[in-house]
Amino acid sequence: MDRDRILLTPGPLTTTLRTKLAMLKDWGSWDGDFIAVTANVRTRLLDIVNGHESHVVVPLQGSGTFSVEAAVATVVPRDGHVLVLDNGAYCKRAAKLTQMMGRRASAVTFAEDEPVSPTVLEAHLKEDPSITHVVLIHCETGTGVLNPLEAVAAVCQRFGKGLIVDAMSSFGAIAIDARTTRFDALVAASGKCLEGVPGMGFVFLRKAILDGCAGRSQSLAMDLHDQHVYMEKTGQWRFTPPTHVLVALSEAITQFVEEGGQPARLARYADNCKTLVGGLSALGLKPFLKPELQAPIIVTFHAPAHPAYDFKRFYAAAKARGFLLYPGKLTQVETFRVGCIGAIGRTEMQQAVNAVAEVLQELGIIAVR
Amino acid sequence: MDRDRILLTPGPLTTTLRTKLAMLKDWGSWDGDFIAVTANVRTRLLDIVNGHESHVVVPLQGSGTFSVEAAVATVVPRDGHVLVLDNGAYCKRAAKLTQMMGRRASAVTFAEDEPVSPTVLEAHLKEDPSITHVVLIHCETGTGVLNPLEAVAAVCQRFGKGLIVDAMSSFGAIAIDARTTRFDALVAASGKCLEGVPGMGFVFLRKAILDGCAGRSQSLAMDLHDQHVYMEKTGQWRFTPPTHVLVALSEAITQFVEEGGQPARLARYADNCKTLVGGLSALGLKPFLKPELQAPIIVTFHAPAHPAYDFKRFYAAAKARGFLLYPGKLTQVETFRVGCIGAIGRTEMQQAVNAVAEVLQELGIIAVR
Repeated sequence: MDRDRILLTPGPLTTTLRTKLAMLKDWGSWDGDFIAVTANVRTRLLDIVNGHESHVVVPLQGSGTFSVEAAVATVVPRDGHVLVLDNGAYCKRAAKLTQMMGRRASAVTFAEDEPVSPTVLEAHLKEDPSITHVVLIHCETGTGVLNPLEAVAAVCQRFGKGLIVDAMSSFGAIAIDARTTRFDALVAASGKCLEGVPGMGFVFLRKAILDGCAGRSQSLAMDLHDQHVYMEKTGQWRFTPPTHVLVALSEAITQFVEEGGQPARLARYADNCKTLVGGLSALGLKPFLKPELQAPIIVTFHAPAHPAYDFKRFYAAAKARGFLLYPGKLTQVETFRVGCIGAIGRTEMQQAVNAVAEVLQELGIIAVR
Repeated sequence: MDRDRILLTPGPLTTTLRTKLAMLKDWGSWDGDFIAVTANVRTRLLDIVNGHESHVVVPLQGSGTFSVEAAVATVVPRDGHVLVLDNGAYCKRAAKLTQMMGRRASAVTFAEDEPVSPTVLEAHLKEDPSITHVVLIHCETGTGVLNPLEAVAAVCQRFGKGLIVDAMSSFGAIAIDARTTRFDALVAASGKCLEGVPGMGFVFLRKAILDGCAGRSQSLAMDLHDQHVYMEKTGQWRFTPPTHVLVALSEAITQFVEEGGQPARLARYADNCKTLVGGLSALGLKPFLKPELQAPIIVTFHAPAHPAYDFKRFYAAAKARGFLLYPGKLTQVETFRVGCIGAIGRTEMQQAVNAVAEVLQELGIIAVR
């Protein structure tokens, strides 16, 4: 049978057929019709964070990590000093790309099963006044832990530090309000909780800092200030845009709004997460995080402590039943991950739980009921 | 009527429905099926340049310009000195991105209506031994002129200089043979003459220089050496790939092979170009380049020397008849451009010629026949 499998991954994820059908047309990147799509997507992205007063949004070709790198390159002066609040793999990646581009980067490391601490941040900012910017990963996809964006933003504002937020996995699902939460840059991508296809990111930049960002980037491709100035002047992208990806995102945002926007999406994902965690817990699988720290985006489970467990076999058996799981990303503990996001609901999550039950039986990890 | 317009542009271009239909499925980027698509695309890209012995190919997220920047960042040492052979807008862009990333860049400038000269290159290499790398744009899309890749490569080889080729607009249509033409890096993209959709580029890197490229890039996202090492180890892309764009490219390459590969594609584009130039010349429109310099990729025409001509009106009237033209990119002369590439043939080109005839009549530039 050629039925599509369901992606229980942190993106690329399962999208609606309607979103994919939007890609059955070719667009001229210079044409007015495409310029209008770009403008409309930008407007509706700003709607989602109530950002029209305070921010602009700049789309960028490439994966989400490209947009994180672009945000750092554009926002942080060459002699800036970035403090990364590190509780996982994506934090480490942000620190690495900051160092590679020649900006000073420090990291304050927290346990992977705990959110980062605004109090510890405050102590660091007091201790080292050379820090100019803070990088926070909103939902650290390595584990699925939700970090305290509002509290971190408040500390940064109080100390007059810039804040760069990687909201890749949370944007669209977890509430972010630019009217009450101050950030210099906030990054997300097309193929995550907005349920578009992968291929572009976008960065919200605070208007108050925008002019100062001119000339900071040492990369032409990643210069969001240049991209923004050109886009404002011409309506176009500086370099060939991923036209099909953008129109798919536009269609995905339309469905996002129809569904009821962020609160509705959060409710659906929370329900997915509940079905998943409840179902797998009943099978003896233990989530890595305490429930109160778990964002309903991606759940890390401890691998079964059973000699018959092998991730590759587990994965293959789940795939044969129609579901793509995701490997763990922790070095100390053996885990696997299951995404709660994408164009799926309780029905699909329950089917996934049933499939995992069968898989555990097949592998001889739990007894056949 | 909702019939799709035909893109007579240098990409994004008109693709087949079959290519677009490949995007109606979501792929897990970690999954074996997607890993196989990536591997298969890489193999078939190497086939096109007979590059299996001498080169690897590294795909990269983003537009073609991202891959040009990545090629320079990966191949040129930080203390390298790049000479750009400049006869157009894309050459100037290559020089700019090289300078921005902190590499020394010089340019030798040629007239925009002439190919770059291997003899002049030779003189420059003799004069300035500090030059380590040469950048050549194979087909300069600003005008459509074809530059002498083989002769430039021979000079670079003789002087022991690295050669980086931007073959964005030529790859797949103009013959490039890695067995006889030595280049360190050659860059192209999905949405050009392979007739995929835009969203990713790819760079051929010469195996002999590959190990020396480790650690040269100051950008994590654009580090092609790192991307290559990771891909060889895992089969996966380092960061989220544009899954739908890649499967569309895979499907487009299948059709490319079915059509008869590069010779067949060149023949079709040459026929498109002949129909276009013949038809528009008969209407009094004059090509900017001498015929022997014209690549059958994109043709620059002088704007009609008539007071009633206005590009915006010309464009809108052609669009109303189903064809998207492209603006000129020359500063000294008023021009417009028409692409010959994409999933179109003589029928569409003749329809385009007929449409332009009507447009010129409507604007009062030529008499109604």
